[in-house]
Amino acid sequence: MKLIPDPEKISVVIEKIRQLKKRIGFVPTMGALHSGHFSLINRARKENDIVVVSIFVNPTQFSKGEDFKEYPRRFKKDIGFCRRLGVDFVFLPDRNNMYPEGYSTFINVDNLSDCLCGVSRPGHFRGVATVVAKLLNIVHPDTLYLGQKDAQQAIIISRMVKDLNFPVKVKVLPTVRQGDGLALSSRNAYLNKQERSVALVLSKALRLAETLISNGQRNCGRIISRMKQLIERNKQAKIDYIAIVDPEQLKELKKIAPGCLIALAVKIGKVRLIDNTVIGCA
Amino acid sequence: MKLIPDPEKISVVIEKIRQLKKRIGFVPTMGALHSGHFSLINRARKENDIVVVSIFVNPTQFSKGEDFKEYPRRFKKDIGFCRRLGVDFVFLPDRNNMYPEGYSTFINVDNLSDCLCGVSRPGHFRGVATVVAKLLNIVHPDTLYLGQKDAQQAIIISRMVKDLNFPVKVKVLPTVRQGDGLALSSRNAYLNKQERSVALVLSKALRLAETLISNGQRNCGRIISRMKQLIERNKQAKIDYIAIVDPEQLKELKKIAPGCLIALAVKIGKVRLIDNTVIGCA
Repeated sequence: MKLIPDPEKISVVIEKIRQLKKRIGFVPTMGALHSGHFSLINRARKENDIVVVSIFVNPTQFSKGEDFKEYPRRFKKDIGFCRRLGVDFVFLPDRNNMYPEGYSTFINVDNLSDCLCGVSRPGHFRGVATVVAKLLNIVHPDTLYLGQKDAQQAIIISRMVKDLNFPVKVKVLPTVRQGDGLALSSRNAYLNKQERSVALVLSKALRLAETLISNGQRNCGRIISRMKQLIERNKQAKIDYIAIVDPEQLKELKKIAPGCLIALAVKIGKVRLIDNTVIGCA
Repeated sequence: MKLIPDPEKISVVIEKIRQLKKRIGFVPTMGALHSGHFSLINRARKENDIVVVSIFVNPTQFSKGEDFKEYPRRFKKDIGFCRRLGVDFVFLPDRNNMYPEGYSTFINVDNLSDCLCGVSRPGHFRGVATVVAKLLNIVHPDTLYLGQKDAQQAIIISRMVKDLNFPVKVKVLPTVRQGDGLALSSRNAYLNKQERSVALVLSKALRLAETLISNGQRNCGRIISRMKQLIERNKQAKIDYIAIVDPEQLKELKKIAPGCLIALAVKIGKVRLIDNTVIGCA
């Protein structure tokens, strides 16, 4: 496994490998790797000749007042994980490599970026789209692997890839959960024991919605209101949003439709967590 | 020479050629080709194995009320020119291919896009940056050829290429002029005979600036004021802007500095023309 911090260098190295007609799989991360990332890396490993993982805590996707400085950085541990999972290249750039002085270019995916998480995280998805475009140009993979846990991110990146004609296939893999249902997230590290237990309300609310739907409920307003009730029983849980939307335009739905996305963000103490589920058929 | 309207198809065809380690040169155009374009194509022909020209009147770079509908379209003639110049592929997409329903992604190059031509053409450079990013992802050339006549465009695209790590070299070639000094532009086709003669004020004003500078004048305000006087002698000429700026950040200068850009836009009747010169040493 090779560790490369320089964007130009890894570009050249990978381009040479591409010329040998090797298939390249790419998993972009902000580090603090967990089983959710591992599932992406494992899939990339199965489906490609070469696996590239990037580890970069991207400053442009943090809004003012967010946790950029506190975001968990465990690069040595992460590199160990990558080695054990059979990764070929870890791209580990620093901020000045990615955003040198005079940096000016940003990508907006209109309509999809200002709703759901975009409301309380202005500029977040602009930062995400921009850094992923940069990474795609640097790594030039055949396939990009993303996690369903960040559903809006996956939808926005898929839209950008299509709109800007990036020659890459996007695969979105299922959310990985702990035994009790908590979706894996690097931000779970912020939770103390008691908050960890309160955090279960997110997945519980989603399971409640699924049950209501399988029992025939189709009214989104009523489903959301039952989810709210469940969450608000916990004084430490503060709802940011609960929404039921179509998975392409992220427009709020009145009636449950096949493929719709139920997404929510809840603050547990100071920690903002997200989760979602896709309703297969209804 | 092959004519390909479908983005996915030309992507696949060119990727196969890239695998044979051929060098690919790319000239993006909006058609209505003239000797300015020919000089780009000829240079691309000399320096590459394969030359790709795109012809696409890009709707997203026209502001409301601009000449999108009237913009000269002479595709048959253009294709004839390309054939004679030894072009290998003409990429001729239609609007629905490039911006299908639901299209949402746009690229902004901040700071550089709202000054000079950006003032009277809001959104113009967003459209330019976006379509060039798309074209780069579709064609994936080794070298991109641009004309110095559209100086701000060339600066913005160079910035975007660097910022987003596009693996392409940008070459900016000198403005091609008619014998009397008029910079070639597809929009010259709008000028009647009398306006064509008034249009010479642009290049004359630039030559005046060069003369003043070579005679020792360093005060940008005074140079601009002399250029204004010269242009305003013609009642049909209406100045949009005259600016002397540094060629990286496009910030207005008080004193002439080596490499500075003198740029202007002037309306001749209803036709908005631009021109510029770079001051080599001062």
